Amino acid sequence: MPYIHPRQMRSADLLQRYQTVRSATVSLIDGLSDADCTAQSMDDASPAKWHLAHTTWFWETFLLKGRLAGYSEFHPRFNYLFNSYYEAVGDRHSRPKRGLLTRPSLDEVLAYRSHVDDGMASLFQRELAADAVDIVQLGLAHEEQHQELLLTDILHLFAQNSLQPAFKAPEPLAVDDVAMEPESYTAFEVELAEIGHGGDAFAFDCEGPVHKQAMRSFRLANRTVNNGEWLNFIKDGGYQNAALWLSDGWAICQAEGWTAPLYWFERDGEWWSMTLRGPQPLSMQAPVTHVSFYEADAYASWAGKRLPTEAEWEVAARDQPVDGNFADTGRLRPAVPVSGDGKPAGLFGDVWEWTSSPFTPYPGFAASAGAVGEYNGKFMSGQYVLRGGSCVTPPAHVRATYRNFFHPDKRWQFSGLRLAEDA
Amino acid sequence: MPYIHPRQMRSADLLQRYQTVRSATVSLIDGLSDADCTAQSMDDASPAKWHLAHTTWFWETFLLKGRLAGYSEFHPRFNYLFNSYYEAVGDRHSRPKRGLLTRPSLDEVLAYRSHVDDGMASLFQRELAADAVDIVQLGLAHEEQHQELLLTDILHLFAQNSLQPAFKAPEPLAVDDVAMEPESYTAFEVELAEIGHGGDAFAFDCEGPVHKQAMRSFRLANRTVNNGEWLNFIKDGGYQNAALWLSDGWAICQAEGWTAPLYWFERDGEWWSMTLRGPQPLSMQAPVTHVSFYEADAYASWAGKRLPTEAEWEVAARDQPVDGNFADTGRLRPAVPVSGDGKPAGLFGDVWEWTSSPFTPYPGFAASAGAVGEYNGKFMSGQYVLRGGSCVTPPAHVRATYRNFFHPDKRWQFSGLRLAEDA
Amino acid sequence: MPYIHPRQMRSADLLQRYQTVRSATVSLIDGLSDADCTAQSMDDASPAKWHLAHTTWFWETFLLKGRLAGYSEFHPRFNYLFNSYYEAVGDRHSRPKRGLLTRPSLDEVLAYRSHVDDGMASLFQRELAADAVDIVQLGLAHEEQHQELLLTDILHLFAQNSLQPAFKAPEPLAVDDVAMEPESYTAFEVELAEIGHGGDAFAFDCEGPVHKQAMRSFRLANRTVNNGEWLNFIKDGGYQNAALWLSDGWAICQAEGWTAPLYWFERDGEWWSMTLRGPQPLSMQAPVTHVSFYEADAYASWAGKRLPTEAEWEVAARDQPVDGNFADTGRLRPAVPVSGDGKPAGLFGDVWEWTSSPFTPYPGFAASAGAVGEYNGKFMSGQYVLRGGSCVTPPAHVRATYRNFFHPDKRWQFSGLRLAEDA
Amino acid sequence: MPYIHPRQMRSADLLQRYQTVRSATVSLIDGLSDADCTAQSMDDASPAKWHLAHTTWFWETFLLKGRLAGYSEFHPRFNYLFNSYYEAVGDRHSRPKRGLLTRPSLDEVLAYRSHVDDGMASLFQRELAADAVDIVQLGLAHEEQHQELLLTDILHLFAQNSLQPAFKAPEPLAVDDVAMEPESYTAFEVELAEIGHGGDAFAFDCEGPVHKQAMRSFRLANRTVNNGEWLNFIKDGGYQNAALWLSDGWAICQAEGWTAPLYWFERDGEWWSMTLRGPQPLSMQAPVTHVSFYEADAYASWAGKRLPTEAEWEVAARDQPVDGNFADTGRLRPAVPVSGDGKPAGLFGDVWEWTSSPFTPYPGFAASAGAVGEYNGKFMSGQYVLRGGSCVTPPAHVRATYRNFFHPDKRWQFSGLRLAEDA
Repeated sequence: MPYIHPRQMRSADLLQRYQTVRSATVSLIDGLSDADCTAQSMDDASPAKWHLAHTTWFWETFLLKGRLAGYSEFHPRFNYLFNSYYEAVGDRHSRPKRGLLTRPSLDEVLAYRSHVDDGMASLFQRELAADAVDIVQLGLAHEEQHQELLLTDILHLFAQNSLQPAFKAPEPLAVDDVAMEPESYTAFEVELAEIGHGGDAFAFDCEGPVHKQAMRSFRLANRTVNNGEWLNFIKDGGYQNAALWLSDGWAICQAEGWTAPLYWFERDGEWWSMTLRGPQPLSMQAPVTHVSFYEADAYASWAGKRLPTEAEWEVAARDQPVDGNFADTGRLRPAVPVSGDGKPAGLFGDVWEWTSSPFTPYPGFAASAGAVGEYNGKFMSGQYVLRGGSCVTPPAHVRATYRNFFHPDKRWQFSGLRLAEDA
Repeated sequence: MPYIHPRQMRSADLLQRYQTVRSATVSLIDGLSDADCTAQSMDDASPAKWHLAHTTWFWETFLLKGRLAGYSEFHPRFNYLFNSYYEAVGDRHSRPKRGLLTRPSLDEVLAYRSHVDDGMASLFQRELAADAVDIVQLGLAHEEQHQELLLTDILHLFAQNSLQPAFKAPEPLAVDDVAMEPESYTAFEVELAEIGHGGDAFAFDCEGPVHKQAMRSFRLANRTVNNGEWLNFIKDGGYQNAALWLSDGWAICQAEGWTAPLYWFERDGEWWSMTLRGPQPLSMQAPVTHVSFYEADAYASWAGKRLPTEAEWEVAARDQPVDGNFADTGRLRPAVPVSGDGKPAGLFGDVWEWTSSPFTPYPGFAASAGAVGEYNGKFMSGQYVLRGGSCVTPPAHVRATYRNFFHPDKRWQFSGLRLAEDA
Repeated sequence: MPYIHPRQMRSADLLQRYQTVRSATVSLIDGLSDADCTAQSMDDASPAKWHLAHTTWFWETFLLKGRLAGYSEFHPRFNYLFNSYYEAVGDRHSRPKRGLLTRPSLDEVLAYRSHVDDGMASLFQRELAADAVDIVQLGLAHEEQHQELLLTDILHLFAQNSLQPAFKAPEPLAVDDVAMEPESYTAFEVELAEIGHGGDAFAFDCEGPVHKQAMRSFRLANRTVNNGEWLNFIKDGGYQNAALWLSDGWAICQAEGWTAPLYWFERDGEWWSMTLRGPQPLSMQAPVTHVSFYEADAYASWAGKRLPTEAEWEVAARDQPVDGNFADTGRLRPAVPVSGDGKPAGLFGDVWEWTSSPFTPYPGFAASAGAVGEYNGKFMSGQYVLRGGSCVTPPAHVRATYRNFFHPDKRWQFSGLRLAEDA
Repeated sequence: MPYIHPRQMRSADLLQRYQTVRSATVSLIDGLSDADCTAQSMDDASPAKWHLAHTTWFWETFLLKGRLAGYSEFHPRFNYLFNSYYEAVGDRHSRPKRGLLTRPSLDEVLAYRSHVDDGMASLFQRELAADAVDIVQLGLAHEEQHQELLLTDILHLFAQNSLQPAFKAPEPLAVDDVAMEPESYTAFEVELAEIGHGGDAFAFDCEGPVHKQAMRSFRLANRTVNNGEWLNFIKDGGYQNAALWLSDGWAICQAEGWTAPLYWFERDGEWWSMTLRGPQPLSMQAPVTHVSFYEADAYASWAGKRLPTEAEWEVAARDQPVDGNFADTGRLRPAVPVSGDGKPAGLFGDVWEWTSSPFTPYPGFAASAGAVGEYNGKFMSGQYVLRGGSCVTPPAHVRATYRNFFHPDKRWQFSGLRLAEDA
């Protein structure tokens, strides 16, 4: 099917895409109570209800208020409650206290969603200006990002509860018995690459512009590091050996008492991990996940390798189909990737792959004008790029040029690693 | 009606008392959602659901498990989740993370209550041993304390929400128009008093034993300090004048930026306060509440008076009926006390009155044996005694000898003050 | 020698007393470098140089500036640098940053002392008004207090240094071989006692007024708890047993990881402690010191006893001579007290004895007018009374009525304990 | 003078270089007391005495102990006290408590220096192996780095003292009257550059290897931003406008209450700054210094420009002589740079220039083997590169390839900025 740029799409088709994404968001809270959706387990996480409301606020703020004649704001305080970080849009509720918003209730938030969805349906009655279409696309991508965050945040919440509730039915998943293929490396010989997003299709501003990048030959692992390998790192004293760690990483490793990936625990001498399907025995073949950049980097040192740069990752990935274990498989945890016939497999889906690249602006980058310009640009310090999407990323959300980013000490995302080395 | 000691009561009558108290607890959450009952607004507060479960755990732990043959524990993890602070009963869920327990749900907690209530009904089928009756009494008093805490904690939660939800319908309350009587003082001439609880009736262990206390003549105000007077303190720079404050109090006043009692705020040039009936214009005649010991002490210095000792308060109160604006009036905020005919009025109800007495063991005090010995004794450092009960205290819960206690910087209880001076 | 009240003394005699105290202060820094005198090892401690300057500032501020015609302030910024906590005297240098004042140098501070001493000599040329004499007495007592603090603070500083420097020559001290007498208890039968300081002689304001205190018969140990006994407490799991501890104490014990008194350490299987004479093997017979109130209270619970109230201590001590191992013995650490012939021995000197009494105002207490009124009164919350003086207290500084006070978690003073029980 | 590689130098010549650097270090403390040299003003800074000792420890540890037969360690605890961060060399004294090391005294540390200098003189009696010469070069560069840190740390210490002592005589410096040339930009047209250090001469490991870097045309300012321009940023609300700031930078700007560069203060309506020559009126023409990366980046946003990448800076600088206002001018603060004839001036000296480049390993970077491999590599996360040296950098210490690095919130170094823009 040839790609049709949304600016060339009819509003009716855009509306259909809008509705698909919006209803996918709501479907995520099947089985969750109002209380489940209200609690906030740490400053980095947000309540599910807040995700539902904030994504709605995005449409209301950046489209309906300015572009739908006669649109009536749902509630005068919701701009204060559900603005995330847009300084240009005014003051907002304290981020670490999002979990105290027991009101509005989940039902009221769902009513807010309906109200805004009705407004959007009205808006789509007419063909939209090009800049409005661009915001629609941004809003859809934004909502998909929050779908993933909703899942990572629910897992974090449930992991704080000694009842260890399962987000979805915890049946064992047979595919874990498949063995990962042995580690091998694919060589890439590139001197100068064009990196970054160009062309017409939607991408976040931070993915462009396209620019040249001088490269050296490198070799990339055919798969991500798995839990069994990580266990060897643990057994070899990886978490106790300062020589393997970046200085800032070692400091936090000691301060936090890290001895294993987040959510791992031992029960009767066996390793388990807490997952969206409740506590599960650790699959030695599955990709390791919930490790920080610092841990990933220490592991690579221990293995005598390094993390790839984001350019290397992109070079390896850009000719591959964006297939993999995304949220639509319903698995909700990393799977053993299918063999890549000697080429890197599992680049997309399963786990976000930490790269060695700090999240910085590409040459020539300029943030969008207006409040949406705060979307990515102001986070371009202190964070690292991850690539490829995860088992809780909505399908069709990522691209080879997609740049996710988190601070190097964060572990609650589905973040893993793939090794690289100089050729 | 002559007092009948519970040890002389029939089990059927005890059961009736039990059921009255238990159903009163549940009635408090009328109108609250599961989410409202799950959130925890600060480390000092607990979720309503936690109060419902913890009080239930008390009965299960200290009575059913040891004394009801065939009793089946409701859930194996609830001892971990709902133990408050009894070291002797084992490890427990981290106090500051009580708000993350979205599971068990409110419905499950209510089922837990029913299960335990059924067990208790079975237990009361037979006459109880004297020591079991003592625990019943303690459990009832304990549950009543948590009824009050549930209300103070809900107010604190709702006060963090800029929607300022009302716990109960916010209709204006006419009685605020009554004027407080002018401040006057009643003299008490006592050289040696007997202080503390004696006799047969129930009291907490910390209220006894009865002991002699040397006294000096003193004079006690006929009423508590009201909001209008407190406003004068504010206007006179009370919160900016270090000379009025204890050193530790001044440090926290500056660190926290205190400029008024908790829950006060200005709107369009008028003072309001957040209450269980939502935001309300400040009644100048009503007793000031939600002030810390440090503020109360600074106010007394500013007024050229002092706080009474707990012995002075008890001497003044012990011949008065335990009447007043308790939780059963449904007012849920302090009222102007009815005149005392020249005697101190409003000693009971409305607001807990800070005394100048640190919470220490009375001479000869010994904590009870076993885990319930942790009830009061281990808190006998760093806290101050408050007397008299408040507008959210269950009726018939307090006595003239009753010693409530909080750290001197706490403000979320319904705490006010009454002045005293040397004769 | 009959007591002569300072108001009846000639100025020449007062000057002699002044000079004796002042030179004693300076003699303490024999062997210390400018750097030793400048460093601050924690917020609670102050540099020796700061003690030298602050005590000098006291004379300059409260006497010379107002009462010596033509007195010329030594330096315009010293009021800012060396005011401790007198809000009425203006802003001051941040307490936790006293150790950054490498300027003025020690020599400049000594010149400041000389300048002020000259001024004081001029002031004493004439007979002083009664209120000035009162301030002289307060200033002398104040300077003596800082002599003790200078020593406790130097010990704390040197204990942070792995070189473990000795403040004074570390020769072994033979007297440690003396055995403490066996623990025994003296009974006191008192119903009503008069407590507190009265009469003409100097005392701090917080020691009065004299007031009646109802008492119950009690028994007081004939000596303080010694290191060997404390070791038994350790070996019996005292630091791991929550049941022995006050709740606030247990929290800090765990947060700080307390497992022994401050300054204790193990070397080659033997217990040592860091002292003003460098590291020394622990004397099992000597009084335990450097324990907090919380530890003392836990120990008493473990021993099945309790701490005495300050009134009990005072009743036991007031007929005894104020003799003991004070700073003038030069020992600089606790000694085994000489037998008291069946009466409590070692009440004075060796170690400050924690009492169970919070530091509160005595009935009728009123702080002095003016800035010196901040001396004690504003600290009357959150602290506990200690009695009797220590091995680093200047001789003739304490009295039976003397009330020292510290927060219950503090351990760097020479603080120990003596047990009591109900009769 | 043709460059002679140290490996080709005779030991006698190397010794002379060694002695020159070593005596330069000691000369820095002229006029400082033992106390000045002992205090530590914040965790990031170290005492001057510690710098003197740590640099000495470096020679002792990495050369004398392994390579000088019969060398006798100066003191068995100095390895513990003066190891900075080399995990491979063992445990060490807590970094934030370096200021508590009043012992060893300054004299003892100077004796330590002499002892090690004697050892080094013995070592240089013979010709050294190539790897030893490499460590000599590293040790000299290391010592020069600490010379700069000693000065930045002393300034920070003195700035905490309200006496505002001058490190050197505070005479006014006439050169401030020179006007900076107007801002202009030089265009650079480069498509592919070779970046990084190659060849034989000494450089830190992090400066290499040489590698290709794809470039885009850019324009670089002919001078650094000056104080007058920065004042315009302040007056225009730069410190209050979130839109100009990176998210992490805005958070710290608000938390710390930044309103001007470090060391700026207002006195009688005029701007001053604290300098190594004491408080000085702000020179509007001189380069701004003591700004963090976050401030520099916000300024660039405000000016409609950006910071250069480190590659851009290196391209502009590599054909220029390494001349400028370094520590040897004795000025000790930034000066107005001399005109560059339309080319970027003042690239070397005056102030370190923040670049937009995170400090990451160059492609192919590998840290040295052994403990010295910890020198730079483990700091390659979370920090930003600065280029060009400052007014307190030893002359001949920097190069066009030199990469200094600090966390983006640090302000106590002599750090400023130069603007760039896309061509």
